[in-house]
Amino acid sequence: MKETAFQALTVETLAERLAPISAVAEHVGGAQENWKVREVGDGNLNLVFIVEGARGTVVVKQALPYVRLVGDSWPLPLKRSFFEYHALTRQEKRAPGRVPAVLYFDEAQALIVMEYLSPHIILRQALIKGQELRQVAEDLGLFMARTLFRGSDLHMEARERKADLALFADNTELCDITENLVFTDPYFEAPMNRHTPELDALVAELRADRDLKVEAQRMKHLFASKAETLVHGDLHTGSVMVTKEDTRVIDPEFAFYGPISFDVGMLLANYWMAFFSQRGYEAGGSRDAMRAYLLEVIEETWAVFRAEFARLWHTERSGMLYHRSLYEDQGDYLGAEQALNHILRDIWTEMLGFAGVEIHRRILGLAHNADFETIEDTELRASCEAAALKFGRHLAVNRHALQSLREINHLAQALDNGFVSVRKEAEE
Amino acid sequence: MKETAFQALTVETLAERLAPISAVAEHVGGAQENWKVREVGDGNLNLVFIVEGARGTVVVKQALPYVRLVGDSWPLPLKRSFFEYHALTRQEKRAPGRVPAVLYFDEAQALIVMEYLSPHIILRQALIKGQELRQVAEDLGLFMARTLFRGSDLHMEARERKADLALFADNTELCDITENLVFTDPYFEAPMNRHTPELDALVAELRADRDLKVEAQRMKHLFASKAETLVHGDLHTGSVMVTKEDTRVIDPEFAFYGPISFDVGMLLANYWMAFFSQRGYEAGGSRDAMRAYLLEVIEETWAVFRAEFARLWHTERSGMLYHRSLYEDQGDYLGAEQALNHILRDIWTEMLGFAGVEIHRRILGLAHNADFETIEDTELRASCEAAALKFGRHLAVNRHALQSLREINHLAQALDNGFVSVRKEAEE
Repeated sequence: MKETAFQALTVETLAERLAPISAVAEHVGGAQENWKVREVGDGNLNLVFIVEGARGTVVVKQALPYVRLVGDSWPLPLKRSFFEYHALTRQEKRAPGRVPAVLYFDEAQALIVMEYLSPHIILRQALIKGQELRQVAEDLGLFMARTLFRGSDLHMEARERKADLALFADNTELCDITENLVFTDPYFEAPMNRHTPELDALVAELRADRDLKVEAQRMKHLFASKAETLVHGDLHTGSVMVTKEDTRVIDPEFAFYGPISFDVGMLLANYWMAFFSQRGYEAGGSRDAMRAYLLEVIEETWAVFRAEFARLWHTERSGMLYHRSLYEDQGDYLGAEQALNHILRDIWTEMLGFAGVEIHRRILGLAHNADFETIEDTELRASCEAAALKFGRHLAVNRHALQSLREINHLAQALDNGFVSVRKEAEE
Repeated sequence: MKETAFQALTVETLAERLAPISAVAEHVGGAQENWKVREVGDGNLNLVFIVEGARGTVVVKQALPYVRLVGDSWPLPLKRSFFEYHALTRQEKRAPGRVPAVLYFDEAQALIVMEYLSPHIILRQALIKGQELRQVAEDLGLFMARTLFRGSDLHMEARERKADLALFADNTELCDITENLVFTDPYFEAPMNRHTPELDALVAELRADRDLKVEAQRMKHLFASKAETLVHGDLHTGSVMVTKEDTRVIDPEFAFYGPISFDVGMLLANYWMAFFSQRGYEAGGSRDAMRAYLLEVIEETWAVFRAEFARLWHTERSGMLYHRSLYEDQGDYLGAEQALNHILRDIWTEMLGFAGVEIHRRILGLAHNADFETIEDTELRASCEAAALKFGRHLAVNRHALQSLREINHLAQALDNGFVSVRKEAEE
């Protein structure tokens, strides 16, 4: 791969271009002529290929200079591949085994060759199918605590962290997508928005909701200014691949230095959306068990995150913040505990805010998710979405007053149970 | 000045080295042989010269590869001059006329040639002398509101701000000084600390004060992660030059992207220290009027800052945060007002925290200030410092519960009036 000018890969040219790269050729194995190449890109942004050979299989992901789904009318820089590569290597170091192994990276070609995960499927698809995965809460709780704690000034050397912050600060175009599509567009009639027509009245109500719109922008303010740690930046259930035993986090091209709470809030929001969408899939039988499972996953994910964050606080707090010289080294163990309580409280209130706006933007904005979209009956879909919208509004506006996930999940159940009346309201 | 290798200026070589630079030669005027050069460096870090010629006078500031006061045992990179230059140009653009005009910058030589300010003196010296300057509160209130608002996502284009954030993220060594000397060292027995011996008992009490030490680190956490705007980074009364009519802000080499509240808190802290130090200068007559003046300056500075910040919010809110499309454009003027109230509340509570720790570090840490240091009677000095320490502790720990500067200034007066009993306590 000697060319420096960017050239998009095709099924036809891919084997020839990758064969000279020994790390790839060895992994795939056998003669290049026998490699089976297929394109599987189902995401919005990039090209994705699977290459199968005599010995093994790899995934090849290539960024395009525009948004794949939209075309060259929406340009997007190739450097997002650079940020994805650097995020993957840092995540692997901080939470070993939770991201796909990287075999090769070519910056000029915006191309990453990765381990092929099999028989993994996308977590979102599993949840839509009603699969109860037992490992995912613990795996993602640990993944978030480890990557977010170890990438912050609680653990890292300050100079190294500042250099890394400067590196990722250049990921402006992808931050810009989040900043506009998540925090602003859903709350006014932005051109690219869309929503299920039955929601018109509720959407108008939310777009006139002063408290909500102030909170949404306060979350955006936090997102844009609280450069605490290297976040994944797009940690929804479509960025997770699972089997019953294994969990992998993929697609960190939105990575940047942001608030610890952002990944946590986005992930929980997607579980709550999965919860509210289950009514749409009961033609094949009750989803009561699935609903209970999803609420358990939410509680367990947060509990694991919190416990692991506290464990790292006690054992790996080697950064410049809350240094042991001020607390433990003076026998003041409760001082360190007090600081930890404050930090976890902040993560909690921020996380709920991010969860609220993430739910809204998936229903009101440009990028919807399959949980709701796959429900074909728009009236049924709207009733699910309406409950989720009201729930999201409650989280975002009342995040400082909410005490526990148990009480929040009770509220989710109440909103979900009242879906008939909610639907009626939305129709009025 | 063709040499690229760094070479420290001397009184003897300076004229010869600067003469070929037309911008400097024209400003100074006349034959190089007649230029009068003197060294005036009274700061801790750099060389400072004044060059006087037939037409005019300039200031030449050169960074050294180490801390001037300590010598080469404390290395400090030359690039701080680069950050000072870039901060000066941005401040001039955002708050015209409040910083010295830059005539020339040489990055390799870490050298800035600036307008000579005359008959300006350092604000701290004026306050020690008991001079009541009427213009400074308005000038600095406006300076802070304009530089801090216009350097944030409330005003700037997001991409430009992120690039600038990355540029200043490299100012790690000077941030490191603040991070350690301001927020951590004062609160344990760090090697470089010193304090007036009469304060031993109170210092021990503060270093065992759990709530204080947690708050100090929470302020450090904010300082290091809330990359809101380009702050001056060292805005104390020694970084301000004044006449009765004019106010200029100098020495922004600590500039970086931090919280809006940081400059405000640091400046007010230095006024409060000036207030508490006045007892040390009453041999020449009562300082009652000066004390009243200082408390007025504090109230006026904050009032001007707040009013100008609100004015810019209403007229220049062109950045990506709290966009008008969500509020004013929909006729929701109170929505924009609500968001502004929240932001000003946050700046207020953070500002008080930064003020509290700034007061502490000037009495407990390495870098003391002349307000207290010039008081030769250590018992008298300790009594002033003790009142200031208790005041700083109250601000930092109770910052969420404090309502107004009027009530805070009443507390300052009460602590200052009780200085005899405070002194006794400190002696016990």
